Amino acid sequence: MNGQAASKSGTVACIGAGNVGRAWAIVFARAAYNVILYDTNKDVLDNHTIPMIRQSVEDLESAGLVDDANAIISRINTADSIREAVSDSFYIQESVLEDLQVKRTVLCEIDQHMTADAVLASSTSAIPGSSFMDHLTARDRALVAHPVNPPYLIKLVEICRTPWTTDSTVNAVYNLMQEVGQSPICLSKEIDGFILNRLQFTLVGEALHLVSEGYCTAADIDRVVSEGLAPRWSFIGPFQVAHLNATTGFRGFIDGLGSMMRRIGRDAKPDYPWGDKIIDQIHAELSARIPVSDVPKAQSWRDNRLMEFSRYTQKANEKADN
Amino acid sequence: MNGQAASKSGTVACIGAGNVGRAWAIVFARAAYNVILYDTNKDVLDNHTIPMIRQSVEDLESAGLVDDANAIISRINTADSIREAVSDSFYIQESVLEDLQVKRTVLCEIDQHMTADAVLASSTSAIPGSSFMDHLTARDRALVAHPVNPPYLIKLVEICRTPWTTDSTVNAVYNLMQEVGQSPICLSKEIDGFILNRLQFTLVGEALHLVSEGYCTAADIDRVVSEGLAPRWSFIGPFQVAHLNATTGFRGFIDGLGSMMRRIGRDAKPDYPWGDKIIDQIHAELSARIPVSDVPKAQSWRDNRLMEFSRYTQKANEKADN
Repeated sequence: MNGQAASKSGTVACIGAGNVGRAWAIVFARAAYNVILYDTNKDVLDNHTIPMIRQSVEDLESAGLVDDANAIISRINTADSIREAVSDSFYIQESVLEDLQVKRTVLCEIDQHMTADAVLASSTSAIPGSSFMDHLTARDRALVAHPVNPPYLIKLVEICRTPWTTDSTVNAVYNLMQEVGQSPICLSKEIDGFILNRLQFTLVGEALHLVSEGYCTAADIDRVVSEGLAPRWSFIGPFQVAHLNATTGFRGFIDGLGSMMRRIGRDAKPDYPWGDKIIDQIHAELSARIPVSDVPKAQSWRDNRLMEFSRYTQKANEKADN
Repeated sequence: MNGQAASKSGTVACIGAGNVGRAWAIVFARAAYNVILYDTNKDVLDNHTIPMIRQSVEDLESAGLVDDANAIISRINTADSIREAVSDSFYIQESVLEDLQVKRTVLCEIDQHMTADAVLASSTSAIPGSSFMDHLTARDRALVAHPVNPPYLIKLVEICRTPWTTDSTVNAVYNLMQEVGQSPICLSKEIDGFILNRLQFTLVGEALHLVSEGYCTAADIDRVVSEGLAPRWSFIGPFQVAHLNATTGFRGFIDGLGSMMRRIGRDAKPDYPWGDKIIDQIHAELSARIPVSDVPKAQSWRDNRLMEFSRYTQKANEKADN
């Protein structure tokens, strides 16, 4: 790696340089940390990773979300091995394939080379850390830090400890996440899917039930969420929504609507046994609006909308603070 | 009622002048229809309803969301009886108490006085129309048009027919909703809770499970939704999110994450038997942030944020169309 001046001492290692790993690298470099990226795909790492990061950071600068693109990019370098990446890093963020065996193997190698006070976090989106961290020497300094992609635009990070993680490790990661501009929550114990994906896929499971049984189309579901539920959820979550929907707060909301909530909860079918037929039907419906060949273009559009939303939310929150 | 010049011929009756009825009145008057409001609470109707509407419309004007507040307000009048309100109206929107017997009684009286080609829509947020429209002479011209409050800021409207509703009635309401600036979806058949509240309370049911079992706090749930899920949902729904998350579209997303989705769907507990204890705990947690005495102030803040979000979304959509 070629050295660069950085505003902060300390290096973060990002193991795995796919979408998630590259986005994490931007988060840490934006916060003035040096970052070392490693990936098993040496060709991609040597020839494509940094240019792809450069493009993302320049897009952020164009959107007015960062003003020092070159400095950010200059802090990100690549390594030829896990050992080189982690041996001088105080924090290691693993973002390799969502596969238990792959994660076990990669974490084992990280474990051999990380320093005695470094912390190791996995980006897994659903798998409790205890199922692939049990064998680590550093398991007391290991946990899950699940981002929403891309974390440089979406602040939430789910921190989920294993039975072996120490309080000081949880606190260190919580503080680091706040320091680099993320919005962390801490689960008090492990559960499959953590919080975000459980809420997301419970809702999607019921949506698949409703579409499968012919009550509405996939497009209707999308509009109900984005035009009906999300306007409020974009700035307050569902419990606060309820608290503000009754003059007597959450208790009053439940007194009025609790019986409907119970009825719907009992009747919901997030476990609906959807099959290939409905998946193909929804895929066809979505592809009629956005052909698969247009997905890359639509992803750029989505990223631009996310950047706009991020800028808008930042301004709206600042206004609310004044 | 005192007559007013209006840009459109045709009068809409709004029966029930609570939060929902007043908001509907603004939607129709904003679209240049004459509106007649009726409520059983004569004191409120005569002395408070129009001033409250004036305040809301002036807030919309201050936010730059309408530019003709006085004209809008001048189109809204009150009536002394259901008969007076509906006898000359081509469309009647009922927004009385969410109580089956109250709705049956009010709809029966509307039915006696509405004209032979008028259409009757109920604002019920969860009850299928067939359970309180079966006795109406006009049941072929009756259906549910469920708004999200306030509909002048949140566009989605769920149109749900009963077994007796004619296609032409469904089409007429769909077209009217589009004409007045709403975003309607049509359910093909009835289901308790329609789409929006089923999705909302399936997610909230699982959230209550997670908080009750001590995985996280209510504040954590709120942040997962508003800072994790809503940034994308604010402009695309969950199926389109999935479609854009894989280079091969929705089919590819399911190939990769389908087994996790099934696992979470099977394990979700939207039917979790939450009780008073957890409701009190969540109420206390929310009240520590927003005391019940501050709820009215927080509601104003929420309405301002909704107006800002509405203006932002309008601009972002216009930009996307260019």
